[in-house]
Amino acid sequence: MTEPTESKTDVLIIGAGPSGLMAAAWMAHMGVKARIVDKRNTKIFSGQADGLQCRSLEIFDSLGFGDRAWKEAHHMIEICMWNPGQDGVIRRSDRIPDTIVGLSRFQQIVLHQGRIERFFLDNIKKYSGDTIHVERGVLPESLEIDADKVDDDEAYPVTVKLRTLSAEEATPQQQITGSKVADGLFRSNLINEDDEADLIKKSAARAGATEIVHAKYVIGCDGARSWTRRALGFELVGEATDFIWGVMDIIPFTDFPDIRMRCAIHSAKNGSLMVIPRENKMVRLYIQLKEVTPDASGRADRSKITPDIIFSAAQKILAPYKIDYEYCDWWTAYQIGQRVGTSFDAHNRVFLAGDAVHTHSPKAGQGMNVSMQDCYNLGWKVGLVAQGIAKRSILSSYQSERRQIAQDLIDFDHKFSRLFSGRPAKDVMDAEGVSMEEFKDAFLKGNMFASGLSVNYGPSTIVAKPGDAAEQEDFEKKQALATGLPVGMRFNSFKVLNQADARPWHFQERLKADGRFRVVLFAGDILKPEQKARVDKFCELLDAPASFLHRATPEGQAIDGVIEVLTIHSSKRVDTELLRDFPAILHPLDPHRGWDYDKVFVDDVSYHEGYGDAYKNYGVDRERGCVVVVRPDQYVAWVGELDDFEHLERYFAGCLVLRA
Amino acid sequence: MTEPTESKTDVLIIGAGPSGLMAAAWMAHMGVKARIVDKRNTKIFSGQADGLQCRSLEIFDSLGFGDRAWKEAHHMIEICMWNPGQDGVIRRSDRIPDTIVGLSRFQQIVLHQGRIERFFLDNIKKYSGDTIHVERGVLPESLEIDADKVDDDEAYPVTVKLRTLSAEEATPQQQITGSKVADGLFRSNLINEDDEADLIKKSAARAGATEIVHAKYVIGCDGARSWTRRALGFELVGEATDFIWGVMDIIPFTDFPDIRMRCAIHSAKNGSLMVIPRENKMVRLYIQLKEVTPDASGRADRSKITPDIIFSAAQKILAPYKIDYEYCDWWTAYQIGQRVGTSFDAHNRVFLAGDAVHTHSPKAGQGMNVSMQDCYNLGWKVGLVAQGIAKRSILSSYQSERRQIAQDLIDFDHKFSRLFSGRPAKDVMDAEGVSMEEFKDAFLKGNMFASGLSVNYGPSTIVAKPGDAAEQEDFEKKQALATGLPVGMRFNSFKVLNQADARPWHFQERLKADGRFRVVLFAGDILKPEQKARVDKFCELLDAPASFLHRATPEGQAIDGVIEVLTIHSSKRVDTELLRDFPAILHPLDPHRGWDYDKVFVDDVSYHEGYGDAYKNYGVDRERGCVVVVRPDQYVAWVGELDDFEHLERYFAGCLVLRA
Repeated sequence: MTEPTESKTDVLIIGAGPSGLMAAAWMAHMGVKARIVDKRNTKIFSGQADGLQCRSLEIFDSLGFGDRAWKEAHHMIEICMWNPGQDGVIRRSDRIPDTIVGLSRFQQIVLHQGRIERFFLDNIKKYSGDTIHVERGVLPESLEIDADKVDDDEAYPVTVKLRTLSAEEATPQQQITGSKVADGLFRSNLINEDDEADLIKKSAARAGATEIVHAKYVIGCDGARSWTRRALGFELVGEATDFIWGVMDIIPFTDFPDIRMRCAIHSAKNGSLMVIPRENKMVRLYIQLKEVTPDASGRADRSKITPDIIFSAAQKILAPYKIDYEYCDWWTAYQIGQRVGTSFDAHNRVFLAGDAVHTHSPKAGQGMNVSMQDCYNLGWKVGLVAQGIAKRSILSSYQSERRQIAQDLIDFDHKFSRLFSGRPAKDVMDAEGVSMEEFKDAFLKGNMFASGLSVNYGPSTIVAKPGDAAEQEDFEKKQALATGLPVGMRFNSFKVLNQADARPWHFQERLKADGRFRVVLFAGDILKPEQKARVDKFCELLDAPASFLHRATPEGQAIDGVIEVLTIHSSKRVDTELLRDFPAILHPLDPHRGWDYDKVFVDDVSYHEGYGDAYKNYGVDRERGCVVVVRPDQYVAWVGELDDFEHLERYFAGCLVLRA
Repeated sequence: MTEPTESKTDVLIIGAGPSGLMAAAWMAHMGVKARIVDKRNTKIFSGQADGLQCRSLEIFDSLGFGDRAWKEAHHMIEICMWNPGQDGVIRRSDRIPDTIVGLSRFQQIVLHQGRIERFFLDNIKKYSGDTIHVERGVLPESLEIDADKVDDDEAYPVTVKLRTLSAEEATPQQQITGSKVADGLFRSNLINEDDEADLIKKSAARAGATEIVHAKYVIGCDGARSWTRRALGFELVGEATDFIWGVMDIIPFTDFPDIRMRCAIHSAKNGSLMVIPRENKMVRLYIQLKEVTPDASGRADRSKITPDIIFSAAQKILAPYKIDYEYCDWWTAYQIGQRVGTSFDAHNRVFLAGDAVHTHSPKAGQGMNVSMQDCYNLGWKVGLVAQGIAKRSILSSYQSERRQIAQDLIDFDHKFSRLFSGRPAKDVMDAEGVSMEEFKDAFLKGNMFASGLSVNYGPSTIVAKPGDAAEQEDFEKKQALATGLPVGMRFNSFKVLNQADARPWHFQERLKADGRFRVVLFAGDILKPEQKARVDKFCELLDAPASFLHRATPEGQAIDGVIEVLTIHSSKRVDTELLRDFPAILHPLDPHRGWDYDKVFVDDVSYHEGYGDAYKNYGVDRERGCVVVVRPDQYVAWVGELDDFEHLERYFAGCLVLRA
């Protein structure tokens, strides 16, 4: 047996599903030294989660591949509800838009997880110059945290032993059925064996290459049976229900009229079915299996479940419509359960994200989204702290912010699953049945949650909200300056024009995921002398050598390297000029590349793309404007007047390392 | 010397600039056996043409990479006109939108030609499975046409001898100046030497691999000094002017306020300047060189032209504003001239396209666009004829359609160059000067031409327009059925919804460049019984075994393989159902993949993207509808009533090979 090699890295990511890839993407975009390992030797190639929320698309766009997802995906536009009539025959009872109108510049779409992983891999390669790439077939075997060093910014207190597997070990075994269709049981929660443990055992029996990695931070994104979680001794708590569902991806032959719509179908007696149309003529069916029930141990017998059993259940639910298929791309079955992690981090040095800390049923189409968003929340924090730009204290906001979301998700899923798996009520007197009105109501409310846009983070060092009632009144005054930008929620997007070239941009397009905080200066009507004086004063303070802006920026770095100042003014574009009317700090001069023409925007009418009416939509006064701080993950962090400079400075002093 | 090898190909494309790549893209999308060769051993990497018309973007979108160009490009939104005031100092006199509002779903953009070639190469690889790839460093040495066989559909009457160059031979020599900036003189029209001839001579002196290629068709896209053109004995006719211009791509340091706008600047005495902002902070300057003049032979002495001379001219024109640069990406100089080819084809077997048949000044930003559009016009015709789907007679429409465009381009450029290079008139009495009102007027009119959307092809076997006055009245009645879709012009785009899944599409997105003709059935209000009867009758004729649709489709191929029928109806979406209300021929059943859900659309309001109001915008009656034929290159070819089936059939009998 060869001696293990030793190495150091700032961030080690365990698991290369969408959640781990999101963390790696942050490191790539921010230039953080990082590694990402996965025990499998290949990325997944069919099946798996595939609904994408509006918010996930906004996030993809901030990384630079929102357009790829948008282009390839199936767009879900309408939900059709089907319920039994008085005669017990299903009929369409309602149509509702799949995404709430006006919520986002994107709508919910469906795309195979393998494609999403591909976009991440390409993006990580592009931004890291291939210095960060997924190391496949690599299994962690031990993890230790040196508790004495966890508060030392320079230390590498986490030690992880990694072992490289043989190709054979790293290939997940798929059951090949008679129909030659790959099933998904090996990853479904019906499986009992723990294949990681098995893999480790096999590895131990042979001489595999091992490596000791010393890391500043470790992020465990290794799924529902997370090795990292178990290494930390944490648990998922919650329970399974009696509801068993099958899933099939097929190209259907059917006379059912809404097969290309998202459908929620409750049959009178045969259970429920959800239709999710997909790309390439495929349709995903979620099918309630009423004839399969858990045994005394609470677990269903997987050997009983075949594609034929699942599909025949679907046919019964859809009757009198006919459905058949020739091609099935993938199938699986699962038992509904909701569980959430007891803790999301250890010493703010090892973090858990995604399925490692929350599992639930797939039907709500939330899992992959919430998992990716865990790491969209976490990645920049870890990156900025590892780079010495932000204070370590911001890391505790990960658990406080994301554990609540996980709990909300579990609650949502619990309610939704119960309503969806229950028998429809025959009439108002049928107390045991599920009222279809209640179901529709839950669906509508759930739609807001399911967009990913209802997230509202609580107070912390990076969200300037009142911690107690005494501060409430003052906060409400500040919040009133930008009623469309609630502190704690994501920065909504409206179109503005670039002052220098008149090009319309969705403002969110300018909030790229590069790890920078942003100060958005709503400069108001800068042609009014008194307002111009306020803007000049604000800029003078900002540009002073001792300002937070200069002190947050490491020596030798460009002034917009840590905090970028973006301006939106409300005067007419043609009456204003960038160089004449705006202080230099708002469009800084680069000694080699000239003025920055991409930082000042105007709320004005475009030639070809209408009028974003940004001041009105952001709820900002057109004359006096205001100042808004945006976190690197696009959440609104602080709102104040142009004259609240000291308060603004306090915000940054609270979370960033300011040079003396 | 080894014996030359011999081979056959359906289509041989000579030259892999944007024009040749467009031809190759058609072959890739249509599955035609083709080769493309280029004497250079690398694609260009800086400088060169880079304005993209709306129409070019529509074309890119039809191939599948419009989004890539749109995302990477600099978007030109506004043109600013600068002229001398009474005091002789330049000032902004006008602003106009760069692209006429409402003309297209795209606007004019600027992107480096190298990127455009990259998109083409990726696209050709994707669609041909890499069976078509650019063979670089390959030079044609002889071309012969067997005139006896040119009318034989099965023959390969064109014989081309190709020689593979050494790497050294195939590398264009760039003059490296003191400033280490690559200049473009080797491709500019100031150069006298003919480097192809030189390369052939060098090749002849050594043993290079040669190959005899027998081709059905050859397309010569080998630039202004086209070898193919000379091999055919054709000429470019026209003349050079005395106007000499320099071009520089720089990152500017300047206080000129409109440096990020497209600007046309006439100074009082120092000549004219055009500013074209580009991606990556670069700006292209077109600079009139008043101090360099042609010699007695009519040619300018290139040795006199340096970046310093060009830039100092720019500084004088821009005064009192200051401009400087640290980084220059590329520069060149050219003498304005306009020339057009005497003939565009030989025996409809060898075709010339792009700069090989029209050259002009680059400032209008038209050259690359018109060149690509030549091959967008030609490629599908050659492809369909080579495949035996269309009649050889359609090939003569290439010259009749494109020679007129080339002439229009030359005329436009001639007028525009004169106005732009002339001294501004001091006042209305200054007859020698150029009136700035006249210049603005030409600019506005030119904008329509420059969009690429004013193209209106004349009558031919593929454009059902009256050949003589007798047919005029009848034609006008037909055209009145779809006033927004003039026969001969490109099919305009408005949003419609997919009937089956409610997704909004710009209708043009459904007109992919795959070589298929399309019959667009404006089905009208199909819930009205009398209209339903007309639609049913139309579909019955369409689906009859002897219909043009069946007879145009080769045996064993899907019914939509040659002609695709797309439907847009005007009833309410939620009142109609695809399978119930529309005959099967409008959404054909594939034996392995079920019904086609992507062919029937509705003119209705979308949830998230407004209302396209397609019937109104296309000028079609909402009740009775009409039928429109669209060519594979998106040009409107025929308009008629649903009841004009015989007339429709005659159209296809005129251009396609119908089976007996």
